[in-house]
Amino acid sequence: MSRMDRLTPNKSILDKLTPVQLISLYYFIAASVAAFLLSLPISHKDGVQLTFMEVLFTAVSAVTVTGLTVVETADSFSVFGIFMIALALQIGGLGVMALGTLIWIVLGKKIGFKERRLIMTDQNTKSIAGIVRLVKEMFIVILAIEFIGFIILGTYYLTYFDSALQAYYHGFFASVSATTNGGFDITGASLEPFANDYFVQFINILLIIAGAIGFPVLIELKEYLQISQEERNLKRFSLFTKLTSLTYFVLLAFSLIVILILEFNHFFADKTWHEAFFYSLFQSTTARSGGLSTMDMNEFTTQTQLFLSSMMFIGASPSSVGGGIRTTTFALVIIFIISFASGRNRVRIFGREIEEEDLFKAVVVTLLAMLMFFSVVIVITALDGHLSLNSIIFEVSSAFGTTGLSMGITNELSNFSQILLMGLMLIGRIGILTFLFSFNRGKTKDRYRYPKEKINIG
Amino acid sequence: MSRMDRLTPNKSILDKLTPVQLISLYYFIAASVAAFLLSLPISHKDGVQLTFMEVLFTAVSAVTVTGLTVVETADSFSVFGIFMIALALQIGGLGVMALGTLIWIVLGKKIGFKERRLIMTDQNTKSIAGIVRLVKEMFIVILAIEFIGFIILGTYYLTYFDSALQAYYHGFFASVSATTNGGFDITGASLEPFANDYFVQFINILLIIAGAIGFPVLIELKEYLQISQEERNLKRFSLFTKLTSLTYFVLLAFSLIVILILEFNHFFADKTWHEAFFYSLFQSTTARSGGLSTMDMNEFTTQTQLFLSSMMFIGASPSSVGGGIRTTTFALVIIFIISFASGRNRVRIFGREIEEEDLFKAVVVTLLAMLMFFSVVIVITALDGHLSLNSIIFEVSSAFGTTGLSMGITNELSNFSQILLMGLMLIGRIGILTFLFSFNRGKTKDRYRYPKEKINIG
Ligand SMILES: [K+]
Ligand SMILES: [K+]
Repeated sequence: MSRMDRLTPNKSILDKLTPVQLISLYYFIAASVAAFLLSLPISHKDGVQLTFMEVLFTAVSAVTVTGLTVVETADSFSVFGIFMIALALQIGGLGVMALGTLIWIVLGKKIGFKERRLIMTDQNTKSIAGIVRLVKEMFIVILAIEFIGFIILGTYYLTYFDSALQAYYHGFFASVSATTNGGFDITGASLEPFANDYFVQFINILLIIAGAIGFPVLIELKEYLQISQEERNLKRFSLFTKLTSLTYFVLLAFSLIVILILEFNHFFADKTWHEAFFYSLFQSTTARSGGLSTMDMNEFTTQTQLFLSSMMFIGASPSSVGGGIRTTTFALVIIFIISFASGRNRVRIFGREIEEEDLFKAVVVTLLAMLMFFSVVIVITALDGHLSLNSIIFEVSSAFGTTGLSMGITNELSNFSQILLMGLMLIGRIGILTFLFSFNRGKTKDRYRYPKEKINIG
Repeated sequence: MSRMDRLTPNKSILDKLTPVQLISLYYFIAASVAAFLLSLPISHKDGVQLTFMEVLFTAVSAVTVTGLTVVETADSFSVFGIFMIALALQIGGLGVMALGTLIWIVLGKKIGFKERRLIMTDQNTKSIAGIVRLVKEMFIVILAIEFIGFIILGTYYLTYFDSALQAYYHGFFASVSATTNGGFDITGASLEPFANDYFVQFINILLIIAGAIGFPVLIELKEYLQISQEERNLKRFSLFTKLTSLTYFVLLAFSLIVILILEFNHFFADKTWHEAFFYSLFQSTTARSGGLSTMDMNEFTTQTQLFLSSMMFIGASPSSVGGGIRTTTFALVIIFIISFASGRNRVRIFGREIEEEDLFKAVVVTLLAMLMFFSVVIVITALDGHLSLNSIIFEVSSAFGTTGLSMGITNELSNFSQILLMGLMLIGRIGILTFLFSFNRGKTKDRYRYPKEKINIG
């Protein structure tokens, strides 16, 4: 670590912890603090009594920016409590993204001599001062997006709410929840009240995408927008930005089309074309990691619920506020299969060669996630046999993808099943590879730590 | 190909076909001939009219030794028809195994210079005459096993049936169905009539294992039994035999225990310990690929149905009569994950280093199979929405694993779903990698064909 450590406030702890353990510790502390704050009577509405499990589940769900809930947020928590949840979303979404990015950059720095890296942004080659500046920049970008969302939604909500206070209060929470991909709502029915308000949906879609597309993409986009026309012609986006953005939007378009097809004769049968389009677009966007919805998931057919489960399982981009195996992991797995089938030894994309190590990583993450997914589904089915299999598959995918969409069974689950979901949310948020390596100590770990971390953190 | 081609009857066709395409062609022809024979009026019972789809499905199910049925075999087919099914099971199970082994050996021959191969039996280094002898030996071993099974079961069935003819007729079909892992039955209820007859179950278990454990294992075991005591001390079993056998029996034991746990308070609640043990043991064995059962799968809980689905998805050993991703593939995937997590560059097992190429192959097969599995489940759910999700997952796993266990929905499926299942049975039997490479033409194919084929054929 040597030089890098000077960046951090507590050198003595950092000396003993690997970046992986640091990020896990961060979540653990954040969840504990959030649980403590949310258990205070001042956080609850008058007369509301929450159990320890309810508070803990809410805290973990908020810190992992998932949005699964066992109690109705607006009915249970006071305005103070709701601000605490918004704060937890910020800490969970941005704080960890900052920490993740910081570590990622530090790690990027450490492997600066390797030429053929997947993630190769300009930031990687900057000085320590540059890294600090970058994290600050990231905060500014996200906070600016949240602020713009707050102003637009709050002002627009003046037509929906009686008082300006109410409108901006709802606008504030909605913007934070959308941008951090938190998935929490204080309407009591997610964005269902706005099922026919395409403007609200459009703003939410933009905010959700901003959070889920990956922070390095936002930074590169910001740089691109700040430079002159001539410089833009020379500007080369990083492989990371190209690959994650392409995968993100291809999955979005694919999902949009598949849902339209699967529901054509079902939920969309009595809808107009623009209703069908927006229902499909919004749910496609939110299934990446957002968690807000404009409809009851039970209204979809089983096939769409299964399809959405697979989309949630894939999740959002790395170094974003989302979870799941990550879009990049999915893309690398597909690239790996195609390359292998076509008999190519070297895998190239966008004129760059992808390192074997990165492909392995993607494959291990995917296989482990599937193994974990299937095991948890079987255990929850055994524990909560009265719940339908599709609702359990949906719920488990949602937790691992830190998505927060639900068919409404979260509070019907047994305590142990809820604990499993909390575990999945944390693993989904931290990243399955990070999680795996947090158990791995000793020499071999060091040998691999740097290259292996460079895609999936955050 | 050069020298190897002289082995085969039709050089002109073989010149144009890769081994992969040859094995696919073999199945296509076998299924067509079986469908033709089973569509003859002489194959049907008096007054029975079968549709084209019913005949085709039966033919594909028989040739792929799956055992899924859309009509009740004993009620629909005449004794002639049932003998045709038994013949199709032989052709599907043994013929393809012979062909697969032949190609595998030929391929093994071609890569004779590579030292670190996973499959490294003595057979690989033998002459062409030795290969012919080996395939003959294989037939003798399997036919001997079937004959012994026939004699034991037929004689034992004298206590069950009124006439010796009936007893030996049932014994014959039961032995063929078990050894080829065909999964067909002429009792009308699989082995349910023998749910309390542990002797019949025990014989069936032995026959099923003989077919599913992989032909190279049987040959090595035969050689081991034929040599003297002193020679046995020197005898080294091949890595292939060690790895497949270990995986096979570990999965069997694991499955036995998991089913006992999952059904402890459910199906086994009112059973004695030996009933529970035998129900669990038999279903664990048969889920590898056998397809016979001593109980209605609907009596299991959803969690056990899901667990069995995963076991069927894994399937039997390579170069066996079974399907699925294969036990070896599963073992390599687990080894790959563990090695990667523990940071080892080189993967060793039983003192041998496993080639990267084999690990890649295992990973690609597993990922592709999962992708295919999930897609087919979604499509069948969309086509046959009235069927329960667990029964669809069970059916799809059973088809891909060429297992033949069913929750009874096969004949309720729409035509297109049945066509999808036929496709899965064929892919499951041929092997997913073989299937994948059958589309792949040109230079790149040649470069990779040999090493890539060496595990999964058969
Ligand atoms: K979320
Ligand atoms: K079978």
